[in-house]
Amino acid sequence: MPMAVPSTLYLVVLFLVILPAAKSQRNQPMRLRFGKKGEFKILQVADMHYGDGKATPCEDVLPSQLASCSDLNTTAFVRRMILAEKPDFIVFTGDNIFGFDATDAAKSLEAAFGPAIASNIPWAAVLGNHDQESTLSREGVMKHIVGLKNTLSRVNPSEVNPIDGFGNYNLEVGGVQGSAFQNKSVLNLYFLDSGDYSTVPGIFGYGWIKASQQFWFQLTSANLKRAYMSKPLPQKSAAPGLAYFHIPLPEFSRFDASNYTGVRQEGISSPTVNSGFFTSMVESGDVKAVFTGHDHLNDFCGALNGINLCYAGGFGYHAYGKAGWPRRARVVVANLEATSNGNWGTVKSIRTWKRLDDEHLTAIDAQVLWSKTSVGGHDINV
Amino acid sequence: MPMAVPSTLYLVVLFLVILPAAKSQRNQPMRLRFGKKGEFKILQVADMHYGDGKATPCEDVLPSQLASCSDLNTTAFVRRMILAEKPDFIVFTGDNIFGFDATDAAKSLEAAFGPAIASNIPWAAVLGNHDQESTLSREGVMKHIVGLKNTLSRVNPSEVNPIDGFGNYNLEVGGVQGSAFQNKSVLNLYFLDSGDYSTVPGIFGYGWIKASQQFWFQLTSANLKRAYMSKPLPQKSAAPGLAYFHIPLPEFSRFDASNYTGVRQEGISSPTVNSGFFTSMVESGDVKAVFTGHDHLNDFCGALNGINLCYAGGFGYHAYGKAGWPRRARVVVANLEATSNGNWGTVKSIRTWKRLDDEHLTAIDAQVLWSKTSVGGHDINV
Repeated sequence: MPMAVPSTLYLVVLFLVILPAAKSQRNQPMRLRFGKKGEFKILQVADMHYGDGKATPCEDVLPSQLASCSDLNTTAFVRRMILAEKPDFIVFTGDNIFGFDATDAAKSLEAAFGPAIASNIPWAAVLGNHDQESTLSREGVMKHIVGLKNTLSRVNPSEVNPIDGFGNYNLEVGGVQGSAFQNKSVLNLYFLDSGDYSTVPGIFGYGWIKASQQFWFQLTSANLKRAYMSKPLPQKSAAPGLAYFHIPLPEFSRFDASNYTGVRQEGISSPTVNSGFFTSMVESGDVKAVFTGHDHLNDFCGALNGINLCYAGGFGYHAYGKAGWPRRARVVVANLEATSNGNWGTVKSIRTWKRLDDEHLTAIDAQVLWSKTSVGGHDINV
Repeated sequence: MPMAVPSTLYLVVLFLVILPAAKSQRNQPMRLRFGKKGEFKILQVADMHYGDGKATPCEDVLPSQLASCSDLNTTAFVRRMILAEKPDFIVFTGDNIFGFDATDAAKSLEAAFGPAIASNIPWAAVLGNHDQESTLSREGVMKHIVGLKNTLSRVNPSEVNPIDGFGNYNLEVGGVQGSAFQNKSVLNLYFLDSGDYSTVPGIFGYGWIKASQQFWFQLTSANLKRAYMSKPLPQKSAAPGLAYFHIPLPEFSRFDASNYTGVRQEGISSPTVNSGFFTSMVESGDVKAVFTGHDHLNDFCGALNGINLCYAGGFGYHAYGKAGWPRRARVVVANLEATSNGNWGTVKSIRTWKRLDDEHLTAIDAQVLWSKTSVGGHDINV
């Protein structure tokens, strides 16, 4: 069953209208924006696999670590990352809780997101394939998340209805306050529900991003592009976008060690069918990087058709991993171009690195994901 | 550019409403329905490649045929097929004209569809990758087709806007007049524009079916399924569907000689990206077979995830082919189940065969595509 459609309608007709509420939202202050140094930093936390906290043991750690290890090590790692990186925004890309081992989904979610909530840094989350295995359904989990403090998560957009999944939304990141771009979104963030498992007879394996979600993504991307390329300060092409979801796309399998940064230590657990979201993103042209979790032992980024496909690597301690191979997190930083009048313009570059949960939170695999002046593909925005 | 969105809208919001006109359309007589013998027969004509008629020479025919061969041989073949099979409906799956060699697109289209128009049999067409190469754009070609006599072709649905392409529509086939199913669509036909060529930087090759079209397909499929499973005579699952378009899906490459019927004499010229339409059809669950053209030397049907992927084989004489390997057409027949009261019920089986343009219009490769009582997959409707 691809979509839930109101049962009394024979023909569902979609009308194009201007929603006044949505329009007026444009006049509200940007909830996310670049800082005074022309930088916006995102911390990605993948697969926390939170259970019940202190009572929930760790998996795949060294024998010396095992006795004292629990979900609280996951909590401590989130806190250390926040202190070390001081991100502007935190994204949790699913399997936030490991539902089978969480006695109470709401409490487990609150504990898992606790350090983010306490930091007063805005944060967002999407669902993985394990979040619904406790006392709340996928819809219930997403609705609970949306009600937590400091989150910018949303359940679903009003623009496309019906839409598959729970947790499809986008966020705009405004230019520096006081700069010419303070009222324009210069960086766009997309969040999607990649599902849990196939419910289609004859197709086994993990879920996928459906046509309804892709239609919403393309509509949203087209609208953002139009706004960015319109007055005031009309730009020549779309603002760069980043997409966050849980399950890697089939296209993550297209790389070998010669063309990615990071490691691939297990298979790519994408769905067994291709639902076309990679193609939809290439069509729309604004997304420069995709960030997923799901495969804890893979942490690479590889570029295909101008889009970086990136894993974060496993973060949580109550999740399969590899003893001696540290848990890790991914950081993404976008930097603005300095303008000739000493102010800030649009995004100049997007970089990434990872940090390991070792004594020094060692940073590894720093790389440029996108640059306004890069040659090749359709990234030439000079 | 994935979609054309009205430029004055910042946020496009799609609303679910009941369109009275669409609803009342249900009360109009079915334009297509099964005949008194409980049968509905569709003739598929792929790749006519019509040019200017008598002056346009043939390609890849035997030296003995060359001197007297022109587009008129294509016309004669359409006429012979109509006389031999007496189809209830004719579908032209694109490259109806070979635009480069058609001086006047409108005239070429009228000549190409001439035998169908003259037969008074309802017909429909979709676009290929060559139809727009003459004096009309893709939109112009589709609009011209829609205005021709006896066609049930439509430009685009009102349900999803914006939608990519021109020629996305569906047709319902009603049960036998006077039977209990006379006001139910027991067979659903989908027509889609598979595009011409990629317009996306970095992606070469042929076009593909976009997310907007798939969203429309899934909405339509869900609505048809709901109506079929509702009173009166609520059915247990969706009515079978058939999909017609020009360019084969990437999944056509999944077969080898051991699991298809017919021949594969050239590569599968699908787009170089997978846009997910096969997955969308498997999700919706009603489409039992897909019929394309485009590769003139392939004429096979193979089944994957319960969906038959079928070529028709090349039909037109001003099109590449293989000398000595006859031009051909595909026929599909759906038969209804006889009910205990001596009337007709829902679709029992869907069969196909091809006919060659030889002296006897030899029929080959007869096979059952779907049967209500077939075991395996989700086809068990008993």
